[in-house]
Amino acid sequence: MTYCVGLLVDTGLVMLSDSRTNAGVDQINTFRKMSTFHRAHDRVLVLMSAGNLAITQAVVNLLHEPADGADRPSRLFQATNMFNAARVVGDALRKIHERDAESLNDHGHEFNGTFILGGQINGEEPRLFHIYSAGNFIESSSDTPYFQIGESKYGRPIIDRVISRSSSLAQAAKCALVSMDSTIRSNLSVGPPLDLAIIRRDEFKLNTHISIDLDNEYFTMLRKRWGFALREVFSQLPNPNW
Amino acid sequence: MTYCVGLLVDTGLVMLSDSRTNAGVDQINTFRKMSTFHRAHDRVLVLMSAGNLAITQAVVNLLHEPADGADRPSRLFQATNMFNAARVVGDALRKIHERDAESLNDHGHEFNGTFILGGQINGEEPRLFHIYSAGNFIESSSDTPYFQIGESKYGRPIIDRVISRSSSLAQAAKCALVSMDSTIRSNLSVGPPLDLAIIRRDEFKLNTHISIDLDNEYFTMLRKRWGFALREVFSQLPNPNW
Repeated sequence: MTYCVGLLVDTGLVMLSDSRTNAGVDQINTFRKMSTFHRAHDRVLVLMSAGNLAITQAVVNLLHEPADGADRPSRLFQATNMFNAARVVGDALRKIHERDAESLNDHGHEFNGTFILGGQINGEEPRLFHIYSAGNFIESSSDTPYFQIGESKYGRPIIDRVISRSSSLAQAAKCALVSMDSTIRSNLSVGPPLDLAIIRRDEFKLNTHISIDLDNEYFTMLRKRWGFALREVFSQLPNPNW
Repeated sequence: MTYCVGLLVDTGLVMLSDSRTNAGVDQINTFRKMSTFHRAHDRVLVLMSAGNLAITQAVVNLLHEPADGADRPSRLFQATNMFNAARVVGDALRKIHERDAESLNDHGHEFNGTFILGGQINGEEPRLFHIYSAGNFIESSSDTPYFQIGESKYGRPIIDRVISRSSSLAQAAKCALVSMDSTIRSNLSVGPPLDLAIIRRDEFKLNTHISIDLDNEYFTMLRKRWGFALREVFSQLPNPNW
């Protein structure tokens, strides 16, 4: 499986993905699930994927191809706003569906590929979308400032508790990493290295774009202290007297 | 859905279940998912179920029926050890499968019913089993001192972090309730009232068997203080400097 989470706060976006793919437990590989599309002063988009790797890789390849012949930039660079950018991703998914779904079905595989698209295009706010296998999509709201794809349940409670639109980008990054840590601990099919991208509002660039491994100093500190603090807090809560 | 968790520690067992069932969001009902089988000085068993309610209710009914005519107690009271008791539950599941699986299949429904069985029969230690829809089952070990059925993922990280065989019964009960709280907050299909049973080793009775609603004093305190402490701990962790 996979775990990716995208958080939209007032000051920008945090996108975090793991890199484990598996077909059963004896075929575990590392593949990056984050792609970026960036043009200075104009736009910065981050796309994360979950599902069948052949499908999501095909979609990402299509998105990088020049549109209508070699002389025009890819459609994601032509989209005039984030809604249209989400449509471009949805359309690419549908093209791959057209090409592959029947063959997959013949072999008993579902057509399964989902995406989180976050970013900002000059002229509007940063926005965050969740794109389904069918190519349709939803946008995050102030009530739901985040999307998850893949193994989303383990890491959800902490986000529900601490994140809102008014959280800072640093808090959002910290929360995404804590959420990822809980998922990695409980589910073998999610694992490092992690890709983290932070987009600060109105700067139209990737302010942070780093790979985080288990020996990353900050992540190691976070894992240790969070686990320790949870056990501390738990032991300090009164026991029931039943 | 459902969420049930059973924890086995050195001093006994904690079993906790919610009571929400749903068929879509417009048909949400309250049904207890915990059954108990108890004979003083001899045995105490707690059974919790998840899956298709018609299936699990049928299994529980069968388990309460007298064996071989009306003059003998039900098979769960005849089992000489917990392994055999788990077999009795598995056999009941297979009987219901024989009767209902084909009709369910005709209507496009999977045969889906799983159980957690925990308890102690005089002559052996307390034991904990997870029984699958197929009627086969696994037993918990010291590495895995707990089983979950239903919506298990949200509430798993906290158990992984704080529970081992040497935990006290009070700690296990506290942990089960924190785990349930995380699940209830993130998933609409799990809800109160909760049923909590605590079995102390070698006493062959239900030491605690209570129903917990959202206005239960201890549970309310736990929910509030745990949520508050989590946010505190989170805000005290250093932010990244990326």
